[in-house]
Amino acid sequence: MDVKVLRLGHRPSRDARITTHVCLTARAFGASEVILSGEEDPKLMEGVEDVVRRWGGPFSVVYRRNWQGVIDSWKKDGGEVIHLTMYGLPARDVVPGIKDNGKDKLIVVGGARVPGKVYSLADYNVGVTNQPHSEVSSLAVFMHMLLDGAEFDLKFEDARIEVIPQARGKMLREIDDDGD
Amino acid sequence: MDVKVLRLGHRPSRDARITTHVCLTARAFGASEVILSGEEDPKLMEGVEDVVRRWGGPFSVVYRRNWQGVIDSWKKDGGEVIHLTMYGLPARDVVPGIKDNGKDKLIVVGGARVPGKVYSLADYNVGVTNQPHSEVSSLAVFMHMLLDGAEFDLKFEDARIEVIPQARGKMLREIDDDGD
Repeated sequence: MDVKVLRLGHRPSRDARITTHVCLTARAFGASEVILSGEEDPKLMEGVEDVVRRWGGPFSVVYRRNWQGVIDSWKKDGGEVIHLTMYGLPARDVVPGIKDNGKDKLIVVGGARVPGKVYSLADYNVGVTNQPHSEVSSLAVFMHMLLDGAEFDLKFEDARIEVIPQARGKMLREIDDDGD
Repeated sequence: MDVKVLRLGHRPSRDARITTHVCLTARAFGASEVILSGEEDPKLMEGVEDVVRRWGGPFSVVYRRNWQGVIDSWKKDGGEVIHLTMYGLPARDVVPGIKDNGKDKLIVVGGARVPGKVYSLADYNVGVTNQPHSEVSSLAVFMHMLLDGAEFDLKFEDARIEVIPQARGKMLREIDDDGD
């Protein structure tokens, strides 16, 4: 099952950090790609690519102005589209049904103003609770539920560094070219 | 079990939106309070308080310059301190042990530079995965795991509006003073 994230309505001046967190969350929770829409932001994309170079992948970030084309071709290829919104049906009720159907998932997270059309194009409009909080937390918890917590088992390829988990303090391991 | 969140090293110029998302995530996932440290940011606090006025509580946001005093008095009162960090032990291994001990939880989320002392003062240093992503997603997934998903059952008091979940579109209900 391939999972990609479509980030709508990005504005470099206001959203750079939030969108970066969306991208890094997508990667850490096993999505293969984030598709940015809204305004182009090469600096943001370079920052995310730099994380991938150091911490491993595969993971890519691409820009597509035409977000509706992204959704249409995803559905045409047999994938399903899940729009995360506080107005949607509770994730707890919806996730079990979509978890095991094997279809590729395009998870859509909005920006400031989500076009009404998104609600009708999506196969599911899903709320991680129906309270206002954050597209970053919604994405993370949705992915955690979709993966049944398997984000803790993910291995990233070609990483140059990795964390050795510690009860106290920080330990980073540098990985040389032989993978040692 | 009371849960509060301590946000370290806030910088209004850079962190306003991320810290706002931390606050709203804390509220939506059942924390009773966020304690901000770093620089004061009355505008941010007013924004969060406005969400509480409209969407309900109880939830508060307070400022404390002396974050170490917050940690010390929390521990003195019998609570435990959980520092969320990508360098820590995997949440999946740690959460079961701390979930059912009944102690109040102070969840510490860092900013740009977390003082080394935080790692030693915390009872637990916990990673929501050991990959770089976001304090917002770490907080959300940690709370989701701590609550066993009970964020979907939370009721907020004195809300003026609430979402009526929909498969398509948006529905908000305004609640009058009689609670109808």
